[in-house]
Amino acid sequence: SAAAAPLQQQQATTPRLGDVIEAQQFDRDALNEIFEVAREMEAVERGSHGAPSRVLEGYLMATLFYEPSTRTRLSFEAAMRRLGGEVLTTENAREFSSAAKGETLEDTIRTVEGYSDIIVLRHFESGAARRAADTANIPVINAGDGPGQHPTQALLDVYTIKREIGTLDGIKLGLVGDLANGRTVRSLAYLIAKYQNIKIYFVSPDVVKMKDDIKDYLNSQGVAWEESSDLLEVASKCDVIYQTRIQKERFGERIDLYEAARGKYIVDKKVLGVLPKHAVIMHPLPRLDEITVDVDSDPRAAYFRQAKNGLYIRMALLKLLLVGH
Amino acid sequence: SAAAAPLQQQQATTPRLGDVIEAQQFDRDALNEIFEVAREMEAVERGSHGAPSRVLEGYLMATLFYEPSTRTRLSFEAAMRRLGGEVLTTENAREFSSAAKGETLEDTIRTVEGYSDIIVLRHFESGAARRAADTANIPVINAGDGPGQHPTQALLDVYTIKREIGTLDGIKLGLVGDLANGRTVRSLAYLIAKYQNIKIYFVSPDVVKMKDDIKDYLNSQGVAWEESSDLLEVASKCDVIYQTRIQKERFGERIDLYEAARGKYIVDKKVLGVLPKHAVIMHPLPRLDEITVDVDSDPRAAYFRQAKNGLYIRMALLKLLLVGH
Amino acid sequence: SAAAAPLQQQQATTPRLGDVIEAQQFDRDALNEIFEVAREMEAVERGSHGAPSRVLEGYLMATLFYEPSTRTRLSFEAAMRRLGGEVLTTENAREFSSAAKGETLEDTIRTVEGYSDIIVLRHFESGAARRAADTANIPVINAGDGPGQHPTQALLDVYTIKREIGTLDGIKLGLVGDLANGRTVRSLAYLIAKYQNIKIYFVSPDVVKMKDDIKDYLNSQGVAWEESSDLLEVASKCDVIYQTRIQKERFGERIDLYEAARGKYIVDKKVLGVLPKHAVIMHPLPRLDEITVDVDSDPRAAYFRQAKNGLYIRMALLKLLLVGH
Repeated sequence: SAAAAPLQQQQATTPRLGDVIEAQQFDRDALNEIFEVAREMEAVERGSHGAPSRVLEGYLMATLFYEPSTRTRLSFEAAMRRLGGEVLTTENAREFSSAAKGETLEDTIRTVEGYSDIIVLRHFESGAARRAADTANIPVINAGDGPGQHPTQALLDVYTIKREIGTLDGIKLGLVGDLANGRTVRSLAYLIAKYQNIKIYFVSPDVVKMKDDIKDYLNSQGVAWEESSDLLEVASKCDVIYQTRIQKERFGERIDLYEAARGKYIVDKKVLGVLPKHAVIMHPLPRLDEITVDVDSDPRAAYFRQAKNGLYIRMALLKLLLVGH
Repeated sequence: SAAAAPLQQQQATTPRLGDVIEAQQFDRDALNEIFEVAREMEAVERGSHGAPSRVLEGYLMATLFYEPSTRTRLSFEAAMRRLGGEVLTTENAREFSSAAKGETLEDTIRTVEGYSDIIVLRHFESGAARRAADTANIPVINAGDGPGQHPTQALLDVYTIKREIGTLDGIKLGLVGDLANGRTVRSLAYLIAKYQNIKIYFVSPDVVKMKDDIKDYLNSQGVAWEESSDLLEVASKCDVIYQTRIQKERFGERIDLYEAARGKYIVDKKVLGVLPKHAVIMHPLPRLDEITVDVDSDPRAAYFRQAKNGLYIRMALLKLLLVGH
Repeated sequence: SAAAAPLQQQQATTPRLGDVIEAQQFDRDALNEIFEVAREMEAVERGSHGAPSRVLEGYLMATLFYEPSTRTRLSFEAAMRRLGGEVLTTENAREFSSAAKGETLEDTIRTVEGYSDIIVLRHFESGAARRAADTANIPVINAGDGPGQHPTQALLDVYTIKREIGTLDGIKLGLVGDLANGRTVRSLAYLIAKYQNIKIYFVSPDVVKMKDDIKDYLNSQGVAWEESSDLLEVASKCDVIYQTRIQKERFGERIDLYEAARGKYIVDKKVLGVLPKHAVIMHPLPRLDEITVDVDSDPRAAYFRQAKNGLYIRMALLKLLLVGH
């Protein structure tokens, strides 16, 4: 935001993050700080019943969602509440009478910033979060802006790898499924490139292969990658298999292409059979049948722990943005 | 749920209810305990302004509603807040982006349980609450699952009889209106059968008579019942007249049948004229014209007190499920 | 409401407002009290982070919105939370399953008053707020009822003039834009007429001129007014220019008339050039292009401060209605 701190703010003892707009804005030090605070949040959450946190007491978060995303919204709202803060919700800001009447996002932001201390924005247009942050005098968090960015998802993905495997440097990562349309795998590739000795395997049907911009970026960062059509072989040598849903909505009327792509790479008991003992399966959810349900009970199935990590990452960001470390 | 207690829970001093799925799960002792706590909740609510309760401070309830039911939702949310707890709301989980994309209820539950301490589920499919409870590691309350169960309504109905009349054993109860389609009258018949010397009168248009399964059940439990077409005669000897709305939506295109059924048994001043002084009129609401508005001011009109009892019953259940008696 | 105070209320030391239904209900003394408390609320809000208010701790506000108005709803909910109170929300009460089934507003109110301490009602029918207040035993605030009243908007408008200019007596006020359809300019004219030596200029396209009922009312109150088609000349002698949006939805298929009306009176840099140094530009928002965005950075652009004043006015009303001054 134009000014990172609300005028009323007087408790901060260390500089705070300004806004959270895109995954690329974080360097390794910033990531380390976020992950360290996220880890502390596990204890804060565990203490909720006996000794609930008052860290964000008196703070008000506005969740301004121009398209529905209940999972993300509930995760942010739970994060705010676990820290003692309060929430103003709008699930359906697109019908915000003012937006429907032609009000600009900037005018809406100027109004809502008068009622709250931080804005969590979900929008259907790429770049909306940046515009909101440029307008607001309070912090803005991008909770997804159209085909653009969803930085808190990228952060929780990287945090999950660190939390599950214990390290990020040296990771072997298999990205599986819809690599052309998946916002999450693209952001994850950007973020993981900040670490050392990374190896990435792309495993995807031909119609949804990883695009050249990411491959070029990885090359420029010296990150090793290769494409493979053999999921079992990749699984046998990875630390992390990151499976994604084939996004039907991107295929339009070509249902035949969708059906062909969809069944091609399934994470099932056979994959578990070759996956190293220490490795994990991740997925951004929702999951259809690209991971079979009999995988869920394996301790290496990390996707629900990954969703839970979204809570800790968002708690950490809210704390860092509002009161600092 | 698989485990009744969240891992974080350390304050419980007595065993707690696991989940609330169906009216039949409660025996007389369980009902007595719930009703005793519900009665205590009246004082808790009265003290809200001077000395608000902190019994559920730090607890987070997720209201996951796959179909709208504002009355039930607000009642649960008020209950949580009157006990010092916090709420995550989704009014429209059916459009939960994940559900729309094909995510199973089980996967949604596994995500939401990571963000909250208890789930209140309203769903359009019979059996959904049981599936949710089998999946979740936190308590689940069924707030209505399609044509299935709505156990908190049944509990508040029985509690209202006890609270208004002073006893449940020996009650004479007239069930009036749509006995074929009314989920509430069916559940009430199941629950009241647990008490002694009950007599039930069924008063309904022919097209919506009480079904045989309930009649058989009452026979097996030794509960006396009879059918009558004379509302005035029934009203003159009952402790409780439980009126219900004829459910238009069940008649499809047979509007003629609906209109005939609708006007047949109306609770009005004439009914009040024969109703014993100590008796009460109940109704699960919403009410159309099956109780005339000139009845509202009579002290025996108990239906808005009944709605209020929904608050106390839900406060009691939340307390019992989360921290025990 | 039938009784202004909830039965549980025991802390009030001075008589409280009953309900807030229409702008005309307030005399100068009542307005002064509200504005005095609103001013105190600025300090309460500033203290939110270090020393959050507990004035309304344990109080529960139900926002019952039968049509969406996110700006107004968030403003009320922020007000309640800044005072330590809690909120029950329904964004879409029209689909309230009970309303959809034919339940009367009165029955809905009787239920919701059992769950809350104050009701904020937005409705699509003129007169709905009065009916709700006549039914409820707790306070009701009208947050807009169809073409009827929106009294908290009128209060914040008058408060903004007082706060910005320092006085209300002797004000010269230019009302610009859609004076025929604008609920806000009509209410503002009513309220400002309570003060001394007021002069009002009406500046509007012919198709949306101020109606005779308001002109007659001003005449009866001895308020001087005139119509003008020269915005620059009016701006050069006013303390307040109150611009409004031409309401497209009122023109039906006559898009040509709308387009002609819309471009006629724009507040831009030229208007700023003649506007006195101490004067201000106001607008109820949302704004389209009837104020150009290059005006926003001028200190005399008061419309976002005006929106913020909505928070303080609503905090003041909630405090006065629930616990008194």
